[in-house]
Amino acid sequence: MVTQLDHTDVTSRRSNLSNSVHQYTFDSLSLQRGGKFGPITVAYETWGKLNAGGDNAVLITHALSGNSHAHDSEKPDDTKVAWWNPLIGPGRFFDTSRYFVICSNVLGSCYGTTGPSSPDPNTGQTYGMRFPVITIRDMVETQRRLIEYLGVNRLQMVAGGSIGGQQALEWAVAYPEIVENVIVIAATAALTAQAIAFSEVQRQAILSDPRWLHGDYIPGHGPDSGLSIARMLAMITYQSEEGMELRFARQPSRTQNVTSPSGFTDLTERFDVEDYLYYQGQSLVKRFDANSYLYISRAMDLYDVSEGYPSIEDALSRIRSKALFIGIRSDFLFPAARVRWLANQVRAAGSNALYAELDSPHGHDAFLKEWKQMTGALNLLKE
Amino acid sequence: MVTQLDHTDVTSRRSNLSNSVHQYTFDSLSLQRGGKFGPITVAYETWGKLNAGGDNAVLITHALSGNSHAHDSEKPDDTKVAWWNPLIGPGRFFDTSRYFVICSNVLGSCYGTTGPSSPDPNTGQTYGMRFPVITIRDMVETQRRLIEYLGVNRLQMVAGGSIGGQQALEWAVAYPEIVENVIVIAATAALTAQAIAFSEVQRQAILSDPRWLHGDYIPGHGPDSGLSIARMLAMITYQSEEGMELRFARQPSRTQNVTSPSGFTDLTERFDVEDYLYYQGQSLVKRFDANSYLYISRAMDLYDVSEGYPSIEDALSRIRSKALFIGIRSDFLFPAARVRWLANQVRAAGSNALYAELDSPHGHDAFLKEWKQMTGALNLLKE
Repeated sequence: MVTQLDHTDVTSRRSNLSNSVHQYTFDSLSLQRGGKFGPITVAYETWGKLNAGGDNAVLITHALSGNSHAHDSEKPDDTKVAWWNPLIGPGRFFDTSRYFVICSNVLGSCYGTTGPSSPDPNTGQTYGMRFPVITIRDMVETQRRLIEYLGVNRLQMVAGGSIGGQQALEWAVAYPEIVENVIVIAATAALTAQAIAFSEVQRQAILSDPRWLHGDYIPGHGPDSGLSIARMLAMITYQSEEGMELRFARQPSRTQNVTSPSGFTDLTERFDVEDYLYYQGQSLVKRFDANSYLYISRAMDLYDVSEGYPSIEDALSRIRSKALFIGIRSDFLFPAARVRWLANQVRAAGSNALYAELDSPHGHDAFLKEWKQMTGALNLLKE
Repeated sequence: MVTQLDHTDVTSRRSNLSNSVHQYTFDSLSLQRGGKFGPITVAYETWGKLNAGGDNAVLITHALSGNSHAHDSEKPDDTKVAWWNPLIGPGRFFDTSRYFVICSNVLGSCYGTTGPSSPDPNTGQTYGMRFPVITIRDMVETQRRLIEYLGVNRLQMVAGGSIGGQQALEWAVAYPEIVENVIVIAATAALTAQAIAFSEVQRQAILSDPRWLHGDYIPGHGPDSGLSIARMLAMITYQSEEGMELRFARQPSRTQNVTSPSGFTDLTERFDVEDYLYYQGQSLVKRFDANSYLYISRAMDLYDVSEGYPSIEDALSRIRSKALFIGIRSDFLFPAARVRWLANQVRAAGSNALYAELDSPHGHDAFLKEWKQMTGALNLLKE
C-alpha cells in the first residue's frame, strides 16, 4: 500500500477524514472545457494488495456528497461508517483478498481532494467560484492520474452509482484498454430535463442564500439554509413516492426538535417527513461544502457520454469492457428504462452488456441500501 | 346576475382583476382548526343565469395560484386569458346557456378574496402570518356562504382539479344534499409524503428569503427569489419526466435573457429547461403573494378527506352525488393510481362513481391543457 502525505491541500474538512485516507498531488490537468488547472491533490483509500503485474485493481466511484470511505476495515459490518461496506472485503463481491480496491474522493469535492474549498496556491485564498468548471471526464482523468501513480496497469472493475455510475461509464468509453469490467449503477447516458431542473432548483437555493456571498463565504458561516434546502429536495429525488409512503406516509413528527432551514416552524402540526428532511439538510451542512455542491451537481447535468464524439453510437462502440448496467425500478432521477436503454445501446454497439434491475421501493438510493439484491445483480458479471 | 361591490378589502393585486369580478363580504367563519375569523370577502365571477328554483348552478374551483377567471366571455377561445375557457360557455361542457356557472377566488388567496395580504380591519395592518391556518373545509365553507348569498339551493356540479379537486371532494362529503354531481380531477383523499415533502421545500425557500421578514414584507419588496424558487420546483411537479423530455430534453437555452431567482447565472451554458423555470418563477412573483402561497399550499398538505370522521369509509359513504374522478397517467403529484383508488372507495361506499384517465404526457397540469380528452372524460357524466 502506497502512502503519500507530502501534500499541501488541507481542507477544513480534512479533520473528518479517516486515518486510512492518503493523498497524492500532481501538477496539473487539461480540463475538458478548456484550460489547464493544478496542482491537484487527490484523497484516496485502498484495500487489499496490488499484485506484481499491477492488474488486479478495482476502482470504486462515489456519489455526489460521498467520499473515499467506501469500506471500513475496522468496522466491516457497519453500513453507516462506510457507504459500500457490505460489498467490499475479503470474500465479498469486491474481494479485497483478490483485488486492490481503490476509492478516491472526486475532483471538486471537499474530502481531501482539490475543490472550491481548497486554497489557490497562487493567492493563498480559497478558490470559491474561481474554481474552474469541471466535468465527469475531468474526474475520470484525475482518477487515471492516481492509478498511474499507484502502479496500476489494468482495472479489473470500475464500479459506481449515480454520478459514480457516470464516471464508470466514462472510464469504459475513455479508456477501453484499461477497463476489464464496468459496472454502471443508476446512471444513464445523460440526465433528463427533469433531473437538470431538480438540480438547478437546488443550486438556486444555495445561490440565493445571502450568506453565499458569491462563493466567498466565511468558513463556518456559509449558505447553510440554502444548502439545507438543496439537500431536502435532493433527498426527495433519491427516494420514491412508494418508498416515502412506506416510511413516512402522513405520520406526525415524532420529535419536533429539528430546526428547519429557515428556522421557522411550519403552519400547524409538523409531518414526520418534514422533520426527516430538516434533519437531512442539517446533516449535510455539517459535512459538505456548498460550492462543491454547485460544481459537482453541475458536472452531473453537463455529462453526456456522446460529448466529443460524432454520435452516441460512436462513443459507446469504443467500449471493450464487459459491462453490467443496474437500474432501479423506483428510481425517477435515473429511470430504470433509461439505464436499460443504455445497456441495449452498448450491446448494439458490439459489447457484452448485461442489464439487471433492483426491484426496490427505495428509489435512486437503493444501490446504497439493497445489499442482497445488489450482490445478486453484481454476481451476474461472474456468470 | 348579482353584483356586490360594497367591500372594503382591496388587495394590491385587485387592479389585475377582470371587470367581471364581484365581491361579497360576510361577517365571520368558524374555522376547522378552531376560532372564528372575519370579516371575509369573496371575489367571484359568474356566467349564465340562475333559474327561479336556484337549482341550475355549477361551482368551479381553481388550482393553487389560480383565480376566479375560469372563463372569459369576451375572449372565449383564448386559453391564456382564462384557465378553463374551452370547457365553459354556451354549448360547452359547462354550458352557460343552461347553467349558472360560479367560480370564486379561494380563501387565503390574493385575487380579491381575503387572504394574508388583506388588511386586518382591527389594526389596519396587512394580516401577514397573523392570518389563521385555513383548510380545504374552510375554503368550501366560504364558497357555501357565497352560493347561499347568490340564492343557489342546489349545485348541479362542483368541479375542479388539484387543490380545486380537493375542494370538490370536500363539497360532496360535507354537503351531500346540495351537490348533484361532483368532478374530482387530479386530486386524492390526501397528499402523499412525497407531495408534502415537495411542498415543504417550496415553503422553506420562501421562509428562508431574508426579504420575507416573518411575513411582514414591504409590498413590492417581498421574498421574490424564495417565491421564484418555490414556483420553479412546483412547475417540475406539475409536469412529468416524459413531458419535459418532449418539450426541453437537453436543448440549450434559446434566450439567455431571463434572470434566475438568485440573479446568478449558472456554471457554463444554460439549458432551455432552466430558462423556462426562471421565467415561470418570475411570472408568479409578479402576480402572486408569497404568504398566500404558504397558507394555500399548507391547506393542500393538511387535507385528509377522513378528518373529523371515524374512518375514510365513513367520510366517503356520506357522498350522494354522482361522482366522476379523473386521473392523469403521467401525474406524479397526485398519482392516477391513487385517484382511481379513491373512485373505487367511493363506489364501495355505495355511490355512483366513475373513473376516467387522461392519457397525457403533460403530468398534473394536463387538466389545464388536454381540452379534447378533458371534454371526453367530462362527458362520461352525461352517459
